[in-house]
Amino acid sequence: MKTTFEIIKNARQAAPVLAASDTGTRNKALLAMADRLEEATGDILKANAEDVEASREKYGAVMIDRLMLSEERIKGMADGIRDVVALPDPVGKVLAEVVRPNGLVIKKTAVPLGVISIIYESRPNVTSDAASLAIKSANAAVLRGGKESFRSNYAITVALKKGLADAGLPEDLVGLVEDTTRASALEIMQAEGLIDLLIPRGGAGLIKSCMQNAKVPCIETGTGICHIYVDASADLDKAVRIIENAKTSRPSVCNAEEVLLVHRDIAGKFLPMVSARLRDDRKARGLVPVELRLDAEAAAIIDGTLAGAQDFDTEFLDYILAVGVVGSVEEAVAHVQKHSTHHSDAIITEDRAAADFFVKTVDSAAVYVNASTRFTDGGEFGLGCEMGISTQKLHARGPMGLAELCTYKYIIEGSGQIR
Amino acid sequence: MKTTFEIIKNARQAAPVLAASDTGTRNKALLAMADRLEEATGDILKANAEDVEASREKYGAVMIDRLMLSEERIKGMADGIRDVVALPDPVGKVLAEVVRPNGLVIKKTAVPLGVISIIYESRPNVTSDAASLAIKSANAAVLRGGKESFRSNYAITVALKKGLADAGLPEDLVGLVEDTTRASALEIMQAEGLIDLLIPRGGAGLIKSCMQNAKVPCIETGTGICHIYVDASADLDKAVRIIENAKTSRPSVCNAEEVLLVHRDIAGKFLPMVSARLRDDRKARGLVPVELRLDAEAAAIIDGTLAGAQDFDTEFLDYILAVGVVGSVEEAVAHVQKHSTHHSDAIITEDRAAADFFVKTVDSAAVYVNASTRFTDGGEFGLGCEMGISTQKLHARGPMGLAELCTYKYIIEGSGQIR
Repeated sequence: MKTTFEIIKNARQAAPVLAASDTGTRNKALLAMADRLEEATGDILKANAEDVEASREKYGAVMIDRLMLSEERIKGMADGIRDVVALPDPVGKVLAEVVRPNGLVIKKTAVPLGVISIIYESRPNVTSDAASLAIKSANAAVLRGGKESFRSNYAITVALKKGLADAGLPEDLVGLVEDTTRASALEIMQAEGLIDLLIPRGGAGLIKSCMQNAKVPCIETGTGICHIYVDASADLDKAVRIIENAKTSRPSVCNAEEVLLVHRDIAGKFLPMVSARLRDDRKARGLVPVELRLDAEAAAIIDGTLAGAQDFDTEFLDYILAVGVVGSVEEAVAHVQKHSTHHSDAIITEDRAAADFFVKTVDSAAVYVNASTRFTDGGEFGLGCEMGISTQKLHARGPMGLAELCTYKYIIEGSGQIR
Repeated sequence: MKTTFEIIKNARQAAPVLAASDTGTRNKALLAMADRLEEATGDILKANAEDVEASREKYGAVMIDRLMLSEERIKGMADGIRDVVALPDPVGKVLAEVVRPNGLVIKKTAVPLGVISIIYESRPNVTSDAASLAIKSANAAVLRGGKESFRSNYAITVALKKGLADAGLPEDLVGLVEDTTRASALEIMQAEGLIDLLIPRGGAGLIKSCMQNAKVPCIETGTGICHIYVDASADLDKAVRIIENAKTSRPSVCNAEEVLLVHRDIAGKFLPMVSARLRDDRKARGLVPVELRLDAEAAAIIDGTLAGAQDFDTEFLDYILAVGVVGSVEEAVAHVQKHSTHHSDAIITEDRAAADFFVKTVDSAAVYVNASTRFTDGGEFGLGCEMGISTQKLHARGPMGLAELCTYKYIIEGSGQIR
């Protein structure tokens, strides 16, 4: 068994080989990784069955579903890698170029960060997703998955390493941390000078721990208390459709709506529409109804649980929606600024001035006019992939694609210039 | 006297007003700040005289010169602000735009970070430089200067605040921290949720303290152990000219050369040229000669101090140069990777392959071919200004201009799209 330090150090040492490689070599390695992954289907399914078996008694059905692989899912992972091959190479892209009066040619050029580490939870497909995005962007990857999926992750990593070797690249470019205790996560967070970027992918506890303990550069990801504000001028049918989608199409994800704010002038008409659509209609359609937690003003219009002190600051990740009434777009923005996690927030309005004000003053990664917050996603934004969604402001904000896995350097060509 | 917390909190509260302002208002404020600064020349010089008087016994001539203002220097500061007015507005720039198949229009748009704090040392001109770059990029500024220049900084800030008021903007957008003890610096470093970016501008001690203590996002700046490698194929006259410039044109700055590496094949011819140019010629020209600290192989060719263990890891900031001999460009790169602070490094060569290898594998903010490292500077790179030089990889690398004082958000316009 390799120590966490060895795995990190080996990735660091291998990284310059990848940084100096060309696009063709990296794509060749990715295709080989995809082939090796499919080839190893039997081994991976066997390891996964052991993971699932060991988890059955401890975890519920949702967790087991996240953990479980099938021939089809492994094929999906391999095809995911092949999709990454087709994406444009972010490395070497000239982001800005200038010829100075003294003749210096200055090119701001995208280059890999070096070593990227991802700490993630139960889903084994993250192992191949994260590794492929790292290799595509010429970064080494230190992967630290959860204990419950370790056997699956290990089998997947063995296959990925074979693919790297097929293309003549060092196997150490993808390292899976073998210690799945808290100690290894802390060791990664504090591997100063060895890890260039840490991306946590998981629940609020993991992200908070990274924020508190990381000495290496770290991206805050994922927590989403997403708001939808329905303005006085909104198209109410459009609004109710968007709200149902944002709340219920996948309640467990970070871009799902958690809070609905409604303008006072239309609350009397609109809140009964919301209530009918999210509760009665859904029941009638055999779907899970949404529990509405109402502020006092909303509760005077429709039935529902009275919202508690924490309900406007909670990422429910469930069929629950906090509902409040506000007097203006300014008041809506003030509420969002106070309670938002700076992920995704939307205004539904037919009033250009209200839309412009909302868009300009809401300080979030994604600000929507007349669309569901559920679109905050690398694929939906046209990035072709996604390593996570940043809710911080430095380096990357919103969905992180291949460009966000790179830094840049200035390359300056001269002919003897002095200053 | 306001507490540090009040100053930070007031800046935070004022920031949204600036974020919602237009280019014209911000430029109007900057012009008024420049005018008010010149108008306050008498007050500023009086305050500065007190600072200088209080420092005379404690500090040497270099420090006093950094501290001292004159009518001309104040005019220079005001003109510096006017130059910033002329720069393009970074805010609102659409960095990428895509129309998705579902009709969503997604614009990745530059927006201000919010509140930027700068902790700096003795030079009072940083007060107006930093404030003007912050206001131009629609960020509030929390300025924390050194104790020795406090009176000058305060008088400058009073003038800048008047300029903000002239344009109808809140004076709290520029706040000077009144406590100049270590406590206020620590309070800034740990003002989570209130400060969006901290930029230390000063010596190694300050930067180290920020790196160790900052809980707010912080950019590592400035330390530069810059290398110049002279390849076997180099034009030796060009090389010696570049080396003299990089070492001696301003030895106290971070982009000055600290280490010279010479290819073995030309060391016998080239090192005597270096010795003649940097020592004997400079003496003859009445200039300060450079002390050469030589590795064993260089010492076998020319006279000089034998380099100690730390000499290849020291930012001398003085007329001192560490000199080593290497066997190949690969060996030069390995040395740079081991000892560089990732600031600026150069190769002098007429061999394209050697240049390409060096540029691709040296992992620094600026990598030069046949030019002096002294060009790493916002003005020289055509950015029009500079808030500092980042030696880290996330967010900003190299000289930070107005674009690097911004983040971005995705603005998505829909017509009822759901996912």
